[in-house]
This record gives sequence, C-alpha cells and structure tokens, in this order.
Amino acid sequence: MVVGEFTQKRQLIIAGGGPGGYNAAIRAAQLGMEVTIIEKDKLGGVCLNTGCIPSKTLTHAAAAYASLPHLNEMGIQTGAPGFELQNFKEYQQKTVSALQKGVEALCKANKIEVIKGTATFMSENRIGVDSGHHYEMYEYERAIIAVGASPVMPEGIAPVEGKIISANDLPTLHELPEHLVVSGSDYISLETAVAYRNLGSNVSIFCMDDTFGLDETVAKELHRVLKKLKIKVFKNSTLLEACSYESHVAITVQTDQEKLTLEGSHLLISGQYKPNTQGLGLDFLKMSTDDQGFIVINEYGETSVKGIYAVGDCTIGIKLASKAIKQGKVAAERISGMNSTFNLALVPLVIHTVPPIASVGMTEGEAKQEGYKVKTGQFAMGGNGFAGLAGQKEGLTKLVMDEENELILGVHMMGAGAAELIQSGTTALEMVAREEDLAYPVYAHPSLSEAWLEAVENASGKAIHIPPSRKKAATRKTTFHV
Amino acid sequence: MVVGEFTQKRQLIIAGGGPGGYNAAIRAAQLGMEVTIIEKDKLGGVCLNTGCIPSKTLTHAAAAYASLPHLNEMGIQTGAPGFELQNFKEYQQKTVSALQKGVEALCKANKIEVIKGTATFMSENRIGVDSGHHYEMYEYERAIIAVGASPVMPEGIAPVEGKIISANDLPTLHELPEHLVVSGSDYISLETAVAYRNLGSNVSIFCMDDTFGLDETVAKELHRVLKKLKIKVFKNSTLLEACSYESHVAITVQTDQEKLTLEGSHLLISGQYKPNTQGLGLDFLKMSTDDQGFIVINEYGETSVKGIYAVGDCTIGIKLASKAIKQGKVAAERISGMNSTFNLALVPLVIHTVPPIASVGMTEGEAKQEGYKVKTGQFAMGGNGFAGLAGQKEGLTKLVMDEENELILGVHMMGAGAAELIQSGTTALEMVAREEDLAYPVYAHPSLSEAWLEAVENASGKAIHIPPSRKKAATRKTTFHV
Repeated sequence: MVVGEFTQKRQLIIAGGGPGGYNAAIRAAQLGMEVTIIEKDKLGGVCLNTGCIPSKTLTHAAAAYASLPHLNEMGIQTGAPGFELQNFKEYQQKTVSALQKGVEALCKANKIEVIKGTATFMSENRIGVDSGHHYEMYEYERAIIAVGASPVMPEGIAPVEGKIISANDLPTLHELPEHLVVSGSDYISLETAVAYRNLGSNVSIFCMDDTFGLDETVAKELHRVLKKLKIKVFKNSTLLEACSYESHVAITVQTDQEKLTLEGSHLLISGQYKPNTQGLGLDFLKMSTDDQGFIVINEYGETSVKGIYAVGDCTIGIKLASKAIKQGKVAAERISGMNSTFNLALVPLVIHTVPPIASVGMTEGEAKQEGYKVKTGQFAMGGNGFAGLAGQKEGLTKLVMDEENELILGVHMMGAGAAELIQSGTTALEMVAREEDLAYPVYAHPSLSEAWLEAVENASGKAIHIPPSRKKAATRKTTFHV
Repeated sequence: MVVGEFTQKRQLIIAGGGPGGYNAAIRAAQLGMEVTIIEKDKLGGVCLNTGCIPSKTLTHAAAAYASLPHLNEMGIQTGAPGFELQNFKEYQQKTVSALQKGVEALCKANKIEVIKGTATFMSENRIGVDSGHHYEMYEYERAIIAVGASPVMPEGIAPVEGKIISANDLPTLHELPEHLVVSGSDYISLETAVAYRNLGSNVSIFCMDDTFGLDETVAKELHRVLKKLKIKVFKNSTLLEACSYESHVAITVQTDQEKLTLEGSHLLISGQYKPNTQGLGLDFLKMSTDDQGFIVINEYGETSVKGIYAVGDCTIGIKLASKAIKQGKVAAERISGMNSTFNLALVPLVIHTVPPIASVGMTEGEAKQEGYKVKTGQFAMGGNGFAGLAGQKEGLTKLVMDEENELILGVHMMGAGAAELIQSGTTALEMVAREEDLAYPVYAHPSLSEAWLEAVENASGKAIHIPPSRKKAATRKTTFHV
C-alpha cells in the first residue's frame, strides 16, 4: 500500500455518501464550504442503491400489477397478465443507476471532492482513508459521520445467499419467491410482504408486534386487508431457528401459543441493525454511543466530540432516510453558522403497501399514554367518492385530537393517496393546527382529501357521508334559530 | 293535475339536491332541523350524475390506459392494449349509480324528505312544487336555493346530440371521438382533451386564454406536455360557427391571425353557464342577481331576501362542486344558529390531466398584480426520486411567496400526486404559513412531497437536487464558522 507523505488539509470531511452524507455535503457546499466525502462504495448509500429506491420501485410495480383487474373492470384490456421479473430488475437497475449518476453529477457540480475508501478517525481533527492500494491522512476542521447501519441477523441465525436474507439483499433475488416468510414488525416487513404477495408469491409474516407500530384502528384495517390478500400473520412470534436446504428454508418460531416450524422458499429478516462504525475509530475518540454502538447526538447533530457531527442510521433512534436527510442538512447548516435544529417528533411514516399507509404524530394509544384526553374522528375510504370511482375503497383516515383544546395530535391513514396526503398532516402538526383549521377550508371535489374533512367532521358527529346512528337520530331535537 | 288542498308547513326547504343541496340538507339535519329537498331529477345533481363523477371516472381510466407502456417497461405484460368503451361506460354508470344510491340512503338515514318536482317561490315563505301530475304548496321557515347552472352554447351555435355537445353530454357518447375539437379555456376543456387523447382520439383545443387560468410557469409546462401528446392548441380563438354533417362537424374559428375552419368528429363546448333559475320565481321575490341571473349572496350564503339562502353554481363566482358543498354546509349551519362563514380565496383547483395539475392561492401574476414583491421557488418533477421510479417525470412544483415577510401566497403543481399534495398547500395557506414552515419539517423519503421541499429550498437557492448555476458556483466564497 502506498502511504501519502503529507497530511492533507480539508475543511469539512463527511464519512459516508448516503442520503445523510450527500445532503449534508451539498448543503455545506451551498453555504460556501469546501467539502470532502469519503465513501467506500457508491454515492447514495443503502437508500439509493439497495434500500428505499429499489424497494419503492418494487412496491410501485407490484401495486401497478395488482391494479390490472381494476383496469380490466374499466374497459382496459390487458390480455393474460404476466410479470417478467427479469424485465422488472432491468427497470429497477436503470432507475437506481440514473438516480445514482444524478447524485454523482450533483456532487461534482457542487465541487464536492469524493474520495473512495474506508475512513478511520485518528484524532479529533485527523482521519485516515484506506483506498485499498493507497492510504492518505487528512486534517479537517469539521467532520460529519454518516456511515449508516447494516441489518443484523438474530443470534444463532446465519444469512444464506438468496435464501435467508435481509431487505438489502432483495434486489439480488433471481426469482419470485414461491413462499416468502417474513420475520419482522417494521414497515420493510409489511411492504415486502404485500409487494411479493401482489406479484403472486405466498407470504407469511412472523412478528412480535402485530400493530407494526401503527395506530390501533389502522392496524385493525391492515389486518383485514392482509387476510383478504391471504397473507398469514403470526403475532408475538420469535424466530428460533432457520435452516436452509436445497429446496426450501425450514423456519422454527416460538409464538405465544406454540413452537412451530414452517417451510418457505425464502426467509426475509428485518428490523435489527448495527451501526457501521467498526474500524471508524470512535472508541479512540471516546465518542458517546448507546449500548449497541449508535452515536449519541444533540438536537443539531453534534456528537460528544466537539466539531464532529453524526447523522442518520448510525445515530440513535428511528432508521429512516428522511431523518438522515434532515439531520445531514441541519449539521451542515450548523457547521456553516446557521442556527438550525431538527425535531424528530413529526417524522412522517409512509408504508407503500396496497393501499398505502401513512402516519404522522401520535397514535391514539400514544396520546392516551401521554395523558391526553383524546378525541378522534375517522372516515372509511369506502365512503369517499374519488376512492370509489378509482376502485380503491380499502382503508380509513383517522385524526387524533386533544379533546380539551382541539389540537391535532396525530394523523393516520391507510388508503389511496395516503403517501401524498400525509404531507398535509405534517404541515398541520408543524403549524399546531386545531380541529377548525382542518374543518374550515374548501376541499377539492371529488378528491381523496375529502376523507380527511369527513374524519374531522366525524369527530363532532358531523361527517356528511356517515349515516347518523339510530340512537342519535332518535334523540335529535329541533332547535330552530330565528 | 291534482292540486293539494292545504298549504303544508315545512321548516327548511332546499330547492335542488345536487352537492350544494344535499350537503346543506344533511348538515341541517345533523343540527336538528326538519329538512325537505325538492329535486326534479336525481339526487346528486350534475356533479354526481353527469359532471364530476363521470368525468373523473373517465380521466382516471384514461390515465390508467396511458400508464400501460410504463407498466410494460416494469415487466408487467399486458398484451396488445385495447379500450372497450362499452365496458368503460358500464363501469362509469355502476360507479355513478352506487354513489347516487348512497346519497339517497344518507338522506333517508338523516330523515330528509325528498320531494320530486319543480319548485317555484310564491312568496318569501311559500313555495309551490309541480310534480307533473300533482301540485303542492309549502310554507317554510327558511329556504336554500341550490338549483345549479347549465352550460350554454355561444350565440348562433346550436347543440346537436352526439356531435356538438357540452361536458354534461360526454357520458352519452357511444363512440370514442375520432377527432374531438374542444372549445374552452377551463379545467373541463383540459381534462376532456387529455383524457380522450390518451384513449386514442385526435384532439384540438380552441381557447381564448391559453394559460387556462393557471400560473404562467405551470401553463408553460402544460403546453410542453400537450405538444408531446400531439394536442393542437389554438389560442386567442373565438368560435364563430359550427355545422353538423353526417360524417363530421365543420367548425369555424377566429384566431388572432386568421379565420379558419376545421373538421372534427365531435365538438365539445365548455365554459359558459346560465343559472337554473328560470321559473323559480326569483323576480317575484325581487332577489338580487347579477346581469346573467346568478344570485348575489353574502359570506354565509344569504340572498337579498332575508331567510332565503343560495349556494353553489346558481350563485355568482366560480363553478365548482367544492364551493357548493362548502356554501351548502355554511348556509345550513347559519340557519341552525352557528356563526359559520366561507372564504373562497383558498378554493383549490384540481385538474385531472396526465400529469394532474393542482393549484391554490395566488399565481405569480396575480400576486404581482396585487402589489406583492414576489419571490418564487420551483422544482421540476424530473429531479424527484419517487417521480423518477414511478415513471412520472413531467411537471413541476412552484411556490409563490411574499418576499418581504416570506408568507406563502400560492402553491402550484403539475405532476404526479398533485391532486393530493395540494391539500398541504391549502392547509399551509389557511394557517398563514411562511417559507420556514414548509422548509422545517421532515419530508418522507422517497416521496413526491419532496418536490415541495425542494421548491421551498429553491426559493433561497438551496434545493439539494438542483445543480448550482455556474456563476453562483464560481463566486461562492467560504466563510467558515468557528
């Protein structure tokens, strides 16, 4: 290995070029800094190359495939439907590749230096980069750690290529699973299960938490949909053993009732992560981490080591690219002298099942646990005109409010348009909206958004498209206003 | 004809059971009133039976049909595509019928009396109803006029069944037009043009205003899309003559450059309306109307005749079901003693073209005309990751802001998800959001909503996925914050 003779000076070094890293890099460059990204693999990270983008391409294609009967119903002839996995994989790869090249071009346009290699902190202002055949030392003024996290298998279970896999390995599958067994209680488990089921695979889910972290009413509707899709869900389940054979994978699980063994063609395991901080030299810096090694940061991303920031999956808390992106920008802005902070209380969760699920703020259960006197309003998508004409009648919208002051605490939706409509929930929560703020505006008609209006109106028993309860109708008394 | 012997007493009479009327009726019933709807045709009105719902079913099906090449690209095999109009019409009719029965059931559940007949006001508190074979007189305490409006043909042009038609006649077409000529500058003209083009018809548009009332940047992108679709647009055009022959319709138009004649298979004329108030007895009540007969109302729907309210298309202003629905509820609430009002400054406009267009608040031009110092931010959907993977790269998002205080003045979008995302714009405008209110939250990733974030960030030159301009990049200077 060639070792560089001199320590080179850099202003801002970012370890990792995933969504947290590259967003931080571009924002810092926009604010006038000289930025260097150290990335051992491809810019874009897990999110772009094996995670979010490939998975959302899959869920998008699977949803489109599942919509064919509806298209036929509307007079669109499509012949005998078929799904060519190879063609899909080409499309998926083309999509990833285009976005990946886009990130590279953006970094170049922002004059961001990208060094390929593995980074190791040597001191509070020095970092070494091993590029395989070459080793260089850099002295930096500020650093951002954005190295991400990797899925880990439960103890005693070993990954087997193409058989016992994590979500990041899904794009490498060369066949549609005949029977996909999913072990996990997270959004990845749900998205994967529904997508492959819609493409024709048999699917079973083992999960500890069968609410999947969702509001209880949404979870109930989800289970109705999963049942209709013939996805079998085993709740309170712990994976005990998984053995890969030539023809199948044998999976042993402890449920709350029994120990059972299931045969599947593939086992996807999701939900556990470890930070990609091995060899990064954090111990040497005495950087604070939690007991799993995730980095402790403050409300603008600075670690316990002054001048070194950390963002995204390698930090404590939820594992979402949206968090990494926000934290990356905030860290860059802070380093550049702005007074930015982030608030993870209002991170929207979007799950690309069919129909999609989206949620922001507190669930009813969480709000009650926080001591709120809770008032809710909900509306079934079956009563929404646009959902009806679009053949997408599954799902519901639910608003969680504080009964005392009518503040909106949470918005939860399963149904067509949820992924886009949730933005309105984020805006409402961010602006501390009350019930009347959602009830007052004019809603486009016919539109999926009207389900929200009816959910708000339902909180006071006034949804137009929900029939009055018999009792209520019987006791109504006219008081005419002159 | 049998004439009822006695004048019957009613509390609230609503003339017209369209969206304005039935929403008013249900809301009034919810608030404890005894409600009677007089409707000569079907509950649901134009919107449900021949307008919004049938047209959105058409645009939905046409968009789905247009998406087939994208489905094929993703590995979904669909054989040779075909569109069976007859099947579509059955689906459309089934959809309308289901919703129509739903409205009937809701009225029944809310104990709303529905009388079939034509209403005529006889005095400020009496109305006669002609049910064909029967005539009854009713004395009411309050009334709401919700009779709607009808399309009118330009002077000198007569409708010809199945040839020279208004939008309400579209569901009766028995064939896909070979060449549909559209005369109009409204959202109906655009939706119809794009839908039939996507189903295979040749389409030409004659319009006076080729911005179609949209923000100028969105209009420009729209014209690019229309050109790509091979829809020919003749701007500044006035329809002079239309003659129906067995094989075609000959249409003569005055453009700003020439007088030209075009042959089409069908001519759709949209944009002009007259209120359905003939025979309603408004003259007798001396009710104030504008010079076209549209009823003048105040901010809660009351007409110049105390105790009589009017809502929806028969009143002055925009012709949108969303307006009618809001006004109907407000009138009912007001009559029931609540202090409700409506504000039509923030009515969202949604156009179901491909991609859809949605808009709320002021366009850049309108804001400038109002004297604002305008700042804008925009982002092309081609740079949005989710739009990319979903093969929906057309369009853009644009925010119009007041430069002095960074208040959001308008939100305009053409692109996938616009119809749902616009709700976030309405919420933001309703809550008097500033730039930072849209920039601060965490946006789901990857999501179409990120286009909004980038449009906000672009207003201050900080969109992540827009490369810096060369000049800007060249003059950037590092000022490092310690």
